[in-house]
Amino acid sequence: MESRRAESFSDGVFAVAITVLVFNLLPIAHQGITFAELTARWPQYAGYAVSFLTIGIMWLNHHTMLSHVAKVDRITLVLNTFLLMGVVAVPFPTALVADNLAHGTALASTRVAAVVYGLVLIAISIAFSAMWVYLAAHQGTLGARPIRTPRQATIRFSAGLAGYVVGTLVALVSPVAALVIYAVIAVYYLFEHLPGPEDAAIEGGTESGEDAGSCAEIADAGE
Amino acid sequence: MESRRAESFSDGVFAVAITVLVFNLLPIAHQGITFAELTARWPQYAGYAVSFLTIGIMWLNHHTMLSHVAKVDRITLVLNTFLLMGVVAVPFPTALVADNLAHGTALASTRVAAVVYGLVLIAISIAFSAMWVYLAAHQGTLGARPIRTPRQATIRFSAGLAGYVVGTLVALVSPVAALVIYAVIAVYYLFEHLPGPEDAAIEGGTESGEDAGSCAEIADAGE
Amino acid sequence: MESRRAESFSDGVFAVAITVLVFNLLPIAHQGITFAELTARWPQYAGYAVSFLTIGIMWLNHHTMLSHVAKVDRITLVLNTFLLMGVVAVPFPTALVADNLAHGTALASTRVAAVVYGLVLIAISIAFSAMWVYLAAHQGTLGARPIRTPRQATIRFSAGLAGYVVGTLVALVSPVAALVIYAVIAVYYLFEHLPGPEDAAIEGGTESGEDAGSCAEIADAGE
Amino acid sequence: MESRRAESFSDGVFAVAITVLVFNLLPIAHQGITFAELTARWPQYAGYAVSFLTIGIMWLNHHTMLSHVAKVDRITLVLNTFLLMGVVAVPFPTALVADNLAHGTALASTRVAAVVYGLVLIAISIAFSAMWVYLAAHQGTLGARPIRTPRQATIRFSAGLAGYVVGTLVALVSPVAALVIYAVIAVYYLFEHLPGPEDAAIEGGTESGEDAGSCAEIADAGE
Repeated sequence: MESRRAESFSDGVFAVAITVLVFNLLPIAHQGITFAELTARWPQYAGYAVSFLTIGIMWLNHHTMLSHVAKVDRITLVLNTFLLMGVVAVPFPTALVADNLAHGTALASTRVAAVVYGLVLIAISIAFSAMWVYLAAHQGTLGARPIRTPRQATIRFSAGLAGYVVGTLVALVSPVAALVIYAVIAVYYLFEHLPGPEDAAIEGGTESGEDAGSCAEIADAGE
Repeated sequence: MESRRAESFSDGVFAVAITVLVFNLLPIAHQGITFAELTARWPQYAGYAVSFLTIGIMWLNHHTMLSHVAKVDRITLVLNTFLLMGVVAVPFPTALVADNLAHGTALASTRVAAVVYGLVLIAISIAFSAMWVYLAAHQGTLGARPIRTPRQATIRFSAGLAGYVVGTLVALVSPVAALVIYAVIAVYYLFEHLPGPEDAAIEGGTESGEDAGSCAEIADAGE
Repeated sequence: MESRRAESFSDGVFAVAITVLVFNLLPIAHQGITFAELTARWPQYAGYAVSFLTIGIMWLNHHTMLSHVAKVDRITLVLNTFLLMGVVAVPFPTALVADNLAHGTALASTRVAAVVYGLVLIAISIAFSAMWVYLAAHQGTLGARPIRTPRQATIRFSAGLAGYVVGTLVALVSPVAALVIYAVIAVYYLFEHLPGPEDAAIEGGTESGEDAGSCAEIADAGE
Repeated sequence: MESRRAESFSDGVFAVAITVLVFNLLPIAHQGITFAELTARWPQYAGYAVSFLTIGIMWLNHHTMLSHVAKVDRITLVLNTFLLMGVVAVPFPTALVADNLAHGTALASTRVAAVVYGLVLIAISIAFSAMWVYLAAHQGTLGARPIRTPRQATIRFSAGLAGYVVGTLVALVSPVAALVIYAVIAVYYLFEHLPGPEDAAIEGGTESGEDAGSCAEIADAGE
């Protein structure tokens, strides 16, 4: 299957998953609520923001990853399905953490919630790393554009995974601190994500446009 | 990343966010309800219509804005993520205002709801303006098609932002009046939105088709 | 704006709206339920099927309608937004009718529900007709492929609108009969929808492939 | 209609339907919940995983099926609508089975749930087979790329259908065993799905790139 098709379906799943996050806010609305009550629900907004950024970043990385290959094989699709299974699940631990924090339930309960959140993020990170390692190892078969800095990219993925492991361990002590760590990881990746062919083209000027013929440019513009 | 990819993902998010608005109506249905009770829920329908138009317009402006560039860089994507974070949140203040109005809760409560609605719209307007200013300033690097009337466009964006600020201030006094203002802004933008390259092509006749070669036409038809 | 972009966004909205229908079934699941209880919820399944077919047909007609034009102007987009506003609302009257029927509420209540359902469908039909009339009248400006049977198409649209008006009137007496009429209209349109350029190509064999150059065919296949 | 358009709409529906599965997990979150309570909800996670894989596989098969044709006619679209109607319904029986298992309701109730789950999967399988048989029989008219192993493909589809029938019968005795069978079928299809033109290209090396002219490559790259 062409990587574009898999990407287009995945894009749809990412778009829906990121929007599902608002469903954690809707129950707050379905009550005649005062300003004080609204502000007391801050964990819901914090959870919304952190998970939104996290899924947004994951979408970016997913796109960058698939932009290196022209085709995807069955193994890639299987790995991709597990990756999406994790991404779609994100609103669940988000609600778990936010509800526990907002309702001031016992700390033990909130810790469990923050750990579950971390575990889901770890699972997604592992799926990402597995897919990246697989794609990098099969560049030839899948018609990949050469990955310029495979090592650096692998290190970046590992850094994210390590960060989520640390966050999950911290969650055993302080759920709020864990949430802060997840947020920091998301913000970090906003500015330090995987370099892709397109990024390379932008960073290196417009030389990519030069080695392509005139028809290609028009086809590009026509789309 | 090519602007098309970012736009396609954003389109998905807009499409889901606009559809989520119906979830504010569904709870009304899950009751054996009389005609009188249905009509008493008018704020829900009004909220649905206003927010639907608002998100619809935002989608239009978003598309027009990105149609000026061929590529987007990291900063654009970060700004875009914040913009989408605001758009996806719209069903929340919509529900807040509609539920408060429909259930006839205390005016103080409804005012808070209308203010929150306004604040979300202001946040989105700011994200829009920031993204527009950034794109306009980086036209060269991002392979932009020249923006013909950047000044006029900036004024239009500012007008929207100013309108939402006025609406939010009015919300402190009358939530219904604020809702009317938000609706008026949406209707205004239906007819007065940002001019884009495509619009220009339509307004100026079909001369855009003439200066493109035969290959372009084929690429266009092929899509 | 190119009609393709508007269509792609609309496609997303249709896809989400059609899927939202399952949310009327989910509450049934969230109970330990016996076989008898499950079968007693038949109106929910009937409503799901009728509305699913209805939105599916509308998607088809929407696509066919836009396939006649290459560009859409502001008026078209405004009409399209109102059309989508109606389509997205469909799960609401569906739930209203199904819940009333399933819970055996007073006939008066169920009648109101079926009338509301009909009114929403009428509103969508009117938006469809308005958009069709507008597009047909502006074929030249919008780079339309000639509409071969505009008159026949207009008659078909009117037939649908008339059908929904009859259904709504019947709903005043028998909600179930009205539901049957809405279903019949959907099934009728499954086999009798608006002819478009693509359909013409299929019906007339493959001669459309012949008058296009080799590059065009490749571009087509390459996508 | 071009098969691509139908596929793109279907992709959207698949993407939303697969994401709706998380809504069965959200109610778990909306409670201050302990670790023991969370683990006791394992049927919800199992149901989520099984249905996610199942819909994911169906998307793959759907894509492969449509990749054999260039155009779709009205009958195909009707069959496709029924297919999607089944796919979108999947979250309903998933919730039914998971809720019954998680709440430890009477075995009779859980059996009914697992049977309903099986029936929905059987209905989807039948729609798939019908669509496949129809497309295979109309390869000529629909501009199909030759199906290399139509017989083998038909056998595979039948195997899936037979598997779901067995699962549904087993559900009459043991709901959990039935769930395991549905999971096994999904995992089996992950590795043994319908061969398509693209897969053929990958398996057979890159010779497909050679017999296509330069224009095709450009069109491909331009996308």
